Amino acid sequence: MTEHSLWRFSRAFHRALNERQTDHLESILDENIDWAIYGPIDMFAFLGPRQGKRAVIDVVREISGIVNLHRFERESVMLGENSAASLMRYSLTPAASGQPISIRIAIFATFNAGRLTSLRAVIDTFDLVEQALGRQIHLPKIA
Amino acid sequence: MTEHSLWRFSRAFHRALNERQTDHLESILDENIDWAIYGPIDMFAFLGPRQGKRAVIDVVREISGIVNLHRFERESVMLGENSAASLMRYSLTPAASGQPISIRIAIFATFNAGRLTSLRAVIDTFDLVEQALGRQIHLPKIA
Repeated sequence: MTEHSLWRFSRAFHRALNERQTDHLESILDENIDWAIYGPIDMFAFLGPRQGKRAVIDVVREISGIVNLHRFERESVMLGENSAASLMRYSLTPAASGQPISIRIAIFATFNAGRLTSLRAVIDTFDLVEQALGRQIHLPKIA
Repeated sequence: MTEHSLWRFSRAFHRALNERQTDHLESILDENIDWAIYGPIDMFAFLGPRQGKRAVIDVVREISGIVNLHRFERESVMLGENSAASLMRYSLTPAASGQPISIRIAIFATFNAGRLTSLRAVIDTFDLVEQALGRQIHLPKIA
C-alpha cells in the first residue's frame, strides 16, 4: 500500500519550516498549485493566496524565517484517494516576540499524481491575532 | 446506497436555523455529542464547546435567533464511513445589524450509527469579528 501524499507533503512542509530545506517540498508541489491560508494579511503578509510552485516555496521560506514550529497535534484527519482534510493544533514561537503560541488550523488538500495541487487553510485567526499581539482585543458583546 | 449522515445532519441543521424546527436535528444528534465552534466567546456567546444533545439544541436555537442564513457554498467536502470534513462559505445576516456577512468555516464531524457524535468547527474568526463590527481593527504589521 502506497503512503498517502498527505504524509509526504506534511514531512516536506515541516522540513522546509524547521530546517529551511525546500528540496522535498519542491518535488511534491504541482507547478500550478493553488494555495490559500485565510487570515489578516495586513498583520501577516505570508497569509493569503499564492499561485504556482515558486510563490508557494517563497512563502514557506518566509514563514520559516518568522516562526519556529515546536510540535503539532493532528486532532482529526480524513484521507481520500487524491485529497485530505486535517484539523491540527500547532505550537510555535514567532521569532520576533519569542512568546509561544498555539493555534488551530483546518487544512484541505488535493493531490494529482502525488503532487499537491491545492491547499486551503482556515485558522481561528482572532485567537492567532490576540496571541501574536500578546494582549486581548476588547470586543463588544454582540450576541 | 445509503445517504451519508452528513447530508441528513446538514439539512436538519439548516432547518433548525432557518425554520426554528429542531425535531430533525434532535433525531440526528447523539445524546453525548461533543461539540465545539472555536472563536471569541466574549463577543459571541454561542461559540465555544457544548456537551450533550440538550446543550447543542439550545445553542442552535440561540444561533437561529441571532442570524439569518441566506445560503452556503460547499467549497470542499470529504466523506468517510463515519466521518466527514467540509469547507464551507456561509452568507448570513445578523438580526441585530442587518448587515450581510460572509464567513468561511471548516467542519469536522464524526457519526456513530447515523448520529452525530462530535463536531469541530474552525472559523476565520478575525474576518468574522471585523464583519460583525462593521469596521476594520487596526493591526500592527508583525511579519
